[in-house]
Amino acid sequence: MYQDKRAEIISVGTEILLGQIVDTNSAYLARKLALLGINLFRKTVVGDNAERIKETVGEALKRSDILILTGGLGPTQDDLTKEAVSELLGKKLLLNKKIAEQIQNKISHYHHRISKEAVFKQAMIPLSAAVIPNRVGTAPGIILGIIFEENKKTIILLPGVPEELKVMVEEEVVPYFLAKIPQKEVIKSRILKVWGMGESEVERTISCIMDEQLNPTVALLAKREGTCIRITAKFTPAKVDEEIKRVENKIREKLGNYIYGVDGQTMESVVGSLLKKRGLTLSLAESCSGGLLSHRVTNVPGSSDYYLGGVVSYSNEVKCSLLGVPEKLIREKGAVSEEVAKGMAKGARKVGKAHLGIGITGIAGPGGETSDKPVGLVYIALSSDKEDVCKRFIFSGGREMIKWRASQSALNMLREYLATDLHR
Amino acid sequence: MYQDKRAEIISVGTEILLGQIVDTNSAYLARKLALLGINLFRKTVVGDNAERIKETVGEALKRSDILILTGGLGPTQDDLTKEAVSELLGKKLLLNKKIAEQIQNKISHYHHRISKEAVFKQAMIPLSAAVIPNRVGTAPGIILGIIFEENKKTIILLPGVPEELKVMVEEEVVPYFLAKIPQKEVIKSRILKVWGMGESEVERTISCIMDEQLNPTVALLAKREGTCIRITAKFTPAKVDEEIKRVENKIREKLGNYIYGVDGQTMESVVGSLLKKRGLTLSLAESCSGGLLSHRVTNVPGSSDYYLGGVVSYSNEVKCSLLGVPEKLIREKGAVSEEVAKGMAKGARKVGKAHLGIGITGIAGPGGETSDKPVGLVYIALSSDKEDVCKRFIFSGGREMIKWRASQSALNMLREYLATDLHR
Repeated sequence: MYQDKRAEIISVGTEILLGQIVDTNSAYLARKLALLGINLFRKTVVGDNAERIKETVGEALKRSDILILTGGLGPTQDDLTKEAVSELLGKKLLLNKKIAEQIQNKISHYHHRISKEAVFKQAMIPLSAAVIPNRVGTAPGIILGIIFEENKKTIILLPGVPEELKVMVEEEVVPYFLAKIPQKEVIKSRILKVWGMGESEVERTISCIMDEQLNPTVALLAKREGTCIRITAKFTPAKVDEEIKRVENKIREKLGNYIYGVDGQTMESVVGSLLKKRGLTLSLAESCSGGLLSHRVTNVPGSSDYYLGGVVSYSNEVKCSLLGVPEKLIREKGAVSEEVAKGMAKGARKVGKAHLGIGITGIAGPGGETSDKPVGLVYIALSSDKEDVCKRFIFSGGREMIKWRASQSALNMLREYLATDLHR
Repeated sequence: MYQDKRAEIISVGTEILLGQIVDTNSAYLARKLALLGINLFRKTVVGDNAERIKETVGEALKRSDILILTGGLGPTQDDLTKEAVSELLGKKLLLNKKIAEQIQNKISHYHHRISKEAVFKQAMIPLSAAVIPNRVGTAPGIILGIIFEENKKTIILLPGVPEELKVMVEEEVVPYFLAKIPQKEVIKSRILKVWGMGESEVERTISCIMDEQLNPTVALLAKREGTCIRITAKFTPAKVDEEIKRVENKIREKLGNYIYGVDGQTMESVVGSLLKKRGLTLSLAESCSGGLLSHRVTNVPGSSDYYLGGVVSYSNEVKCSLLGVPEKLIREKGAVSEEVAKGMAKGARKVGKAHLGIGITGIAGPGGETSDKPVGLVYIALSSDKEDVCKRFIFSGGREMIKWRASQSALNMLREYLATDLHR
């Protein structure tokens, strides 16, 4: 049925063609369609031009059965999607008084100032089309989605604002398709995230598993957060999870603790869970990472349960005054050294009265390089009541990438410590 | 000539259709084409399937003159772009021995382990096509770009890895088009960034300017970093900058100091420049922003000239011990209060021995709300040797958005202070 049908996504917006915004909606929609088992055949971007919208939709209708359009539904004269598609399908636009009233009420409630013309434009509904309500209430808050069903084809119009689009998809579009799709095969994915092993090394290690897999498939993707292994399976709903699990177990046998998380997990959320489980607290001392590690740790809701605080010791003076790193040590060993990293980690632990302390010192560049200390050189130390350990890294990339890799590696050191220490 | 021609971008990759990655390349390419004055007519995404690639390219060739394809040029069996396009154009692929040798040398230099087949696949060049070298040297480092010229049409194949693509575009593709484009009209854009005034308020304020403009055009876009006003002009190279400037001046008359930056400037880079110009130093004390402000300040190369360091005082204890905020004050006024924010700002300034200190305390959520202190309540204080000032904000959005808005508002307070103080 629906799963044998072809879908296309058409994003409408001159600002996308000008590269002023990156179209994230279509990636989101693509994932949703994949989960529904609907085959996405093509994605197209077209500008805010009625003729081109009609041409693009007309062509897509010849190829495919389900079209999802995003953008161009707003109140301005540039917003042409509803009008263009209605014209192409030969559907009259009629004023829906009930909707006009609802919009008017909503606007007065939020004290928005919007012209009468804009309200009427929103309330013009194509004959025999279904309306998707908008429950998000962002600024103008009156954009409605539209569903056309014509000759066994489905055309869905959604707004371009990601927050509005997502709520409409979750609450209306997914249930719409689920109601039409029989319990056949679905596509599901699971991502395993690896840190501390490069993409080519991961590929070599699990190539035997990758090669023998047709369903589920196993694919690699190098990302900032590490090498991501994507397992994708197409089975009946009853079997799909089990099949993914089977392949995941095989990969875990090969990669073990290099896998730090799955799907939406981040290194900071994984470390946060481990700290919570162990009842341990953390303090940080950052130099070259500049507060990024602290920022990432505090992105996790509830992090105040285990994160006590940190010092960003950009100047040497702050390293001494706040963290108690001896000035002599900095003079003799240099601010970027194993000794100073350890001193910072210990200082962080003590001033924060925490169980664990992390110290990061290095050269994020582009300046600050010396003959024996290149840009990218970073020392990361971990201090506990048992011991102080330090690792030396040379990270490639620009300033922000070096900061990121330093923060990721520090979190990974914590993760390994917390996982290993559990079994002592 | 080239500027009257139509261009299309075709992104090749099943992972884009599955929504596993967001296609940022095409937004980048779109901006480049706009700057070259080449009219981008459509963008399409197609999966790693030779037949569909040929079909998509064939259709696009009927409509347009310049096609830029990205992705599918790698060494694996999934990489089909070069092969599919060559077949469609009837071009034989021939082994280029010189290129094969170069690739082999590069691989041994970087100690990459790559199969002979992969090298040969890369060195197979379509007859009469031009080769774009790859100077980036990321992991496999051997992906080449290809330029076809056929019947007055141009087809350019570029890799999917953004870093490689960008270098090829800057060094080869842009010069290629510039050499063919006569001095006619070009499209140029300039973005003015506004903070402290909402999109609808900006629209109301400059609507008279927006309405009267056809060339340059003026458009608004609400982004996390503020409301962005895009001025886009299409004129001869001699006149285009002057026309943009004329409209910019009109807008600046209306919005004044609400405009904090232009184009690639960020709030942190603007504040950094002002601090440098004034010869002033900065220390930070962050609670709810969790280190994000420090991270942003240190993203600016050379920030160690004015940024001395900071404290992330997540626990009350750290607020007292490191920043010297009186425990009694926290008990009486609450950690989230004007008094504590001022105490933190003063403490940051003193412990860092800096000219200026910032203190941020608030509730980022989702937990921590009380009856009189809602999620999103944030106090931001600025301390100088002259005075301590504090502002109260209620930010909407989730945890990360509240952190972001707090950091942006704190930087904006600094900016306004530094700009105003200049004229004292």
